Amino acid sequence: MSEEAKVWTAALLVIGDEILSGRTQDLNVAQVARWLNDEGIRLREVRIVADDIGQIARSVNALRGAHDYLFTTGGIGPTHDDITVDAIAEAFGVPVVVHPQARAILEEYYASRGGVNEARLRMARVPQGAELIANPLSGAPGIRMGNVHILAGVPSIAARMLEALTGKLEGGRPVVSVAVGAFAAESDVAELLRTVQDDHPGVAIGSYPFAKDGRFGANFVIRCESGERAADCAGELARKLAEAGFEAIEGGI
Amino acid sequence: MSEEAKVWTAALLVIGDEILSGRTQDLNVAQVARWLNDEGIRLREVRIVADDIGQIARSVNALRGAHDYLFTTGGIGPTHDDITVDAIAEAFGVPVVVHPQARAILEEYYASRGGVNEARLRMARVPQGAELIANPLSGAPGIRMGNVHILAGVPSIAARMLEALTGKLEGGRPVVSVAVGAFAAESDVAELLRTVQDDHPGVAIGSYPFAKDGRFGANFVIRCESGERAADCAGELARKLAEAGFEAIEGGI
Repeated sequence: MSEEAKVWTAALLVIGDEILSGRTQDLNVAQVARWLNDEGIRLREVRIVADDIGQIARSVNALRGAHDYLFTTGGIGPTHDDITVDAIAEAFGVPVVVHPQARAILEEYYASRGGVNEARLRMARVPQGAELIANPLSGAPGIRMGNVHILAGVPSIAARMLEALTGKLEGGRPVVSVAVGAFAAESDVAELLRTVQDDHPGVAIGSYPFAKDGRFGANFVIRCESGERAADCAGELARKLAEAGFEAIEGGI
Repeated sequence: MSEEAKVWTAALLVIGDEILSGRTQDLNVAQVARWLNDEGIRLREVRIVADDIGQIARSVNALRGAHDYLFTTGGIGPTHDDITVDAIAEAFGVPVVVHPQARAILEEYYASRGGVNEARLRMARVPQGAELIANPLSGAPGIRMGNVHILAGVPSIAARMLEALTGKLEGGRPVVSVAVGAFAAESDVAELLRTVQDDHPGVAIGSYPFAKDGRFGANFVIRCESGERAADCAGELARKLAEAGFEAIEGGI
């Protein structure tokens, strides 16, 4: 793969008052990020917005235009505060319609669970022109509209929708990460890190401090599309840390 | 307080490749959100961006103009990937300078820890015109530049910087949240929820499904600036849930 190969990028829009109020700890950013990397797609930006049609629609239009893919999580359940489909239809300038296949899926799923009702049928509504993303866990499907992939907010359900999409999106190469940890203050190795990074074009080194058992240290995460170059860089970093008197711990701490 | 009283709003910009790669689970969104609410300020939007000066500067300018306050977390340590100060200086169109008081704080903090070096002095750099935010935990201060509050990425350090800001920002009234839980499928109570919300202007009800011990249910979170009106709404919701055959659990599940 040449250096000029296309880099596929994505954004994630997390929708929900419960995240913005601090009541619910978001878990979707990390899981979508890791899944995207495995698919060879870089997550470039996340936005978290409230249950507000205008704010969602504006964010969708900004992000779907700036990236190859946009993912959203949240707001596709059966209650009045689930407005993601309406907001995305507004963003695309299309009406909301009932998707016949989604309706059939819900009728089958709820046949042994009390049958469909008006609220459950809300989950068959899609922006006109959309396709479905399978949800083997709880019936109500995810939705693909253009380059926008609309996932559930409950992390376990979002995970199954990502599984359904695995291998189906065009992407490039994953970024390989190699971690090297050391009980070293970041400020004592900052110059060493910069030198090693400058010696390895195309490699990025991130430095993440931690405290463990009362000792301070940092993990240095080496990222590169080439696993070989990442490993070379990690080897040189470990050698230089050892020369400076710090034991390097493969894989980080 | 009249309905027309000013609502103070904020945005949060989380800076860091480690969050966008999924390697590190963000914990700052929830803690900043809860702190802001206690200060009477609404968190309206979060963005998570990479360690990229241009992307940070553009996001800072979009968000500081749209809200009363902007907070940032991450990227103010001593290593080469800590570029938040440079990006915010670029956003404001000012140079980066060494803040004399920050330098004095670092010299004192590191006097018994091996002394300052070039990397440690990086943490005394601020956008010209900035003030400091105290960091009693690890020396290196946070920074206030206009309406932008620059906090550390390590959640325990960010927490201490928020403590240092407590009571110092102008805000309004906190939103009061009251939760009512029930082992009810969202889709079985969706109409009931909508009716109760429509009967209580100024009150928002969010519905958040969960699975516990193999049973499905949902927490209904009632939010309002008036604790009395939130409690009234919660009472009516609990009564209506009971009438519909669902036991309501005060405080949620």
